[in-house]
Amino acid sequence: MYLARVYVTLKPTVNDPQGLTIRGALHSLGFADVESVRAGKYLEVSLDAKDRKKAEKQLAEMCRKLLANPVIEDYRFELEELVST
Amino acid sequence: MYLARVYVTLKPTVNDPQGLTIRGALHSLGFADVESVRAGKYLEVSLDAKDRKKAEKQLAEMCRKLLANPVIEDYRFELEELVST
Repeated sequence: MYLARVYVTLKPTVNDPQGLTIRGALHSLGFADVESVRAGKYLEVSLDAKDRKKAEKQLAEMCRKLLANPVIEDYRFELEELVST
Repeated sequence: MYLARVYVTLKPTVNDPQGLTIRGALHSLGFADVESVRAGKYLEVSLDAKDRKKAEKQLAEMCRKLLANPVIEDYRFELEELVST
């Protein structure tokens, strides 16, 4: 059993209206030190794969096919093996 | 200058319809090994604070006031100092 932490972020050159809006709201709340905000997604996927290699392969495929839009987004993930008790 | 990576996740007891939908979609795509998906937010905030302590204090306040909903969400963040060249 594996727990994958998947981080999906917009590519640096892509406009991020959500991030700009959050930055504006933080400025309105008085946080003048905030220079920029980029918004992304964070997903925790638990996966019953046989070994780490298979889990990694499946996850990369999931990211490409569904979790991220490869045209405008980057993704990375960390795999942690969950030890069953 | 600091870069903060902020992770906002739903508390474990809170229903996550977005995560369930993603799990359903992954199953439809043939990823039968997926047991559960939890969806969250990932934010990168760059902050021009004087020192690490001030940056941490400001970030915790931002999370409580705007970035996360403390009733249903947990948050955590990592701070990285950016060295200007």
